[in-house]
Amino acid sequence: MRPADATSIAAAIRDREVTAKAVTAAALAKIAELNQHLNCFTAVIADTALATAEQIDHAIAQGQDPGPLAGVPFAVKNLFDVQGLTTLAGSKINAEQAPATTDATAVAKLRQAGAVLLGTLNMDEYAYGFVTENSHYGPTHNPHDLNRVAGGSSGGSAAAVAAGCVPLTLGSDTNGSIRVPAALCGVLGLKPTYGRLSRAGTVLFSSSFDHIGPFAHSVRDLAAVFDVLQGPDPRDPVCTARAPEQCLPQLQQGFDGVRIAIATDYFAQGAIPEALEVVEQVAAALGATQRITIPEAHRARAAAFVITAAEGANFHAANLRSRPQDFDPATRDRFLAGSLIPAHWYLQAQRFRRWFQHQVQEIFQTVDLILAPTTPYPAPLISQETIVLDGVEMLIRPNLGLFTQPLSFIGLPVLSVPIQRPGQLPLGVQLIAAPYNEALILRVAAFLETAGIVSAPIVQPRIEV
Amino acid sequence: MRPADATSIAAAIRDREVTAKAVTAAALAKIAELNQHLNCFTAVIADTALATAEQIDHAIAQGQDPGPLAGVPFAVKNLFDVQGLTTLAGSKINAEQAPATTDATAVAKLRQAGAVLLGTLNMDEYAYGFVTENSHYGPTHNPHDLNRVAGGSSGGSAAAVAAGCVPLTLGSDTNGSIRVPAALCGVLGLKPTYGRLSRAGTVLFSSSFDHIGPFAHSVRDLAAVFDVLQGPDPRDPVCTARAPEQCLPQLQQGFDGVRIAIATDYFAQGAIPEALEVVEQVAAALGATQRITIPEAHRARAAAFVITAAEGANFHAANLRSRPQDFDPATRDRFLAGSLIPAHWYLQAQRFRRWFQHQVQEIFQTVDLILAPTTPYPAPLISQETIVLDGVEMLIRPNLGLFTQPLSFIGLPVLSVPIQRPGQLPLGVQLIAAPYNEALILRVAAFLETAGIVSAPIVQPRIEV
Repeated sequence: MRPADATSIAAAIRDREVTAKAVTAAALAKIAELNQHLNCFTAVIADTALATAEQIDHAIAQGQDPGPLAGVPFAVKNLFDVQGLTTLAGSKINAEQAPATTDATAVAKLRQAGAVLLGTLNMDEYAYGFVTENSHYGPTHNPHDLNRVAGGSSGGSAAAVAAGCVPLTLGSDTNGSIRVPAALCGVLGLKPTYGRLSRAGTVLFSSSFDHIGPFAHSVRDLAAVFDVLQGPDPRDPVCTARAPEQCLPQLQQGFDGVRIAIATDYFAQGAIPEALEVVEQVAAALGATQRITIPEAHRARAAAFVITAAEGANFHAANLRSRPQDFDPATRDRFLAGSLIPAHWYLQAQRFRRWFQHQVQEIFQTVDLILAPTTPYPAPLISQETIVLDGVEMLIRPNLGLFTQPLSFIGLPVLSVPIQRPGQLPLGVQLIAAPYNEALILRVAAFLETAGIVSAPIVQPRIEV
Repeated sequence: MRPADATSIAAAIRDREVTAKAVTAAALAKIAELNQHLNCFTAVIADTALATAEQIDHAIAQGQDPGPLAGVPFAVKNLFDVQGLTTLAGSKINAEQAPATTDATAVAKLRQAGAVLLGTLNMDEYAYGFVTENSHYGPTHNPHDLNRVAGGSSGGSAAAVAAGCVPLTLGSDTNGSIRVPAALCGVLGLKPTYGRLSRAGTVLFSSSFDHIGPFAHSVRDLAAVFDVLQGPDPRDPVCTARAPEQCLPQLQQGFDGVRIAIATDYFAQGAIPEALEVVEQVAAALGATQRITIPEAHRARAAAFVITAAEGANFHAANLRSRPQDFDPATRDRFLAGSLIPAHWYLQAQRFRRWFQHQVQEIFQTVDLILAPTTPYPAPLISQETIVLDGVEMLIRPNLGLFTQPLSFIGLPVLSVPIQRPGQLPLGVQLIAAPYNEALILRVAAFLETAGIVSAPIVQPRIEV
């Protein structure tokens, strides 16, 4: 079951069944209708978008190739530079900066492929959070239940796709910030291999953990966008590795011979039973029964906390000193705590990281794909502080990243696929592979989609009047 | 004026004017005579050395090629693994470890070239110091004045060459540990480009600062050893860069067109006048008059302190916790202080390091070689704590690295050439180039040696009876 995804929109526009301008106008109307309830957009650039759409229609009328994503509306987390807009990164402080003079590389690539940028999206301040309850710009509401969070830090990006404002968004993921909101909003969210997509023109959080990636309704959309975004970029020194590999044509190849395992131990506890059951459901559909242990995953999460807190604190040190009152209290207090971390801890965490990376490399000698839950529970209520799990009361916000942090820690490619549960909130399952194996992940996801296990329909928010 | 350097010894052995065994026996006799006064050796492997020398003589008698350094006695700082010996790294703690089962890569390469290892040499504990006043193994004495330090941390390596115990030694340099003792003992000491020579099989201090390099009496010896030691090594992940480049054949090419400048500002203050005068003397001999400023060198030194203290503390954390009483008090207290450094300082220092590296790269667009003093003063007395400079009383030990630290900080190749001052203690001048320009440095040094400005004669220690 596929909603009107980017691929079908682009095809309809290319085939002149509909104009890019009409699609753009419809998306703008939807945003105008829903954003007051969702609070997912922080800027909408209607005039530019409509003008761009007109140019695309003109180009098509002239018989020109307007690009693979021609006329597809999209939006980006507000830490991506968009020429003419100030890059907020969820903060009040950055709102004082001049507008960006150049697009982020990823924005430029999507525009070059014909996609039409409609605006920028809400997030946790400086990407440091899992809920998008931003004290400056307000919380983003989950389209499945407006009383609940969309997840974070790319909450606006997930909610905008889930509610059908735009079929395509970009977010960033340092410790889970694409995968967590994708799971909580019931859409697909891809965190590619570290270094594979350029972060140039985005506000970094912790460079050696930061990834960008897309949200979408269908696997073919993710593949199409991923194919467009790949390629080395001199503007991002870590994005050097490889030439683009076309994943879209590989989607229907199936997964014969692919060795799939379920992550157990750490990844099978600390969650509500349903969060683990959806993993079993996916495993059953794939015929996977093997279970593997990723060793010391709890330490990987602790080390990820230490490194990101220390690097984030260093990145924002000048403002933390001179104007702490201008930060979101939720991020400020954690950055300040991060600024007290001893270098010894930081170095030890980096030392552990090399060890952990090696351990996981070994696992990928015998397994090709690993399944794990994305979050331990579905979307919490806005302002909810704690949850009781196995009789223990836990902080709900940091634990949203329980299962995502150990994986971004070593830059593995991970796709969070949504599992819809009629009458209940969606949950997510992580498909995890060795570096540079996005094509494999997408092939397996395409099978799950065809089998009806995975779907990401547009959700009509229930608005109380 | 060249003493019996490694090159001439190797030639005499190859030409059968003398046997390797006789040379080895003479060196062992000299060690037996002098080491009680110098305390530069911590282990002497007489039997193995004599047996090896015999094999070399046998190979020569058979008409075989025994290698370019055949029969040349050498010794290494005791942080290099030597098969069959416990690698002390100047510590009491490491003395408990089992003997090394393999030679360090550099030791293996010299042995393969025919050089004969006679033993291991004293150093500051864990290479953390500039004086080699080791509380476990005693101070190494300077052959120019036995009441004075040899410098550090490779003090044994410099003193053993200066006194003529062996013509060739290896040391390591993190913040100046080759260059400082070379200057104080009046010998040549080369700290190559970071990553150019393998550190595999050595006890590291702060990996991104650690270099190994040779001490010798002549420029041709340095070049010969450097040529033997070059080449990528899978055992040292940072030693990957380049295939060996033969520097020895280039020595007589002169330096026409080489743009030479004197480092001013930071590098022309905080020193006794004579330490700056020897730089002018070298500059005059080279016809160099241009002066350049390496910006923010004082910050580079501060950042080097922060990073090495933090990394060293992390490296030794387990022992610092469980058995602090077993450390040398001089290193323990600094490691403990290093363990309190905030990660924010560490990260800021690394951030500055990238900036500083870029600034210095820019300087090397217009200049090929930079001259600076090696130390601000000659060898202090053993136990001397302070020195008065410009009316200010300063700690003498840390300030020995004033001029060396900002350069190793960014991995530049630097040769400290000795300037002998009859009736006075020697001083050193640093010849500094852009990365991978060791051949250029050695050519200029060869000119200075031929011109009689630079020399490194054997010093007969004045022993009071």
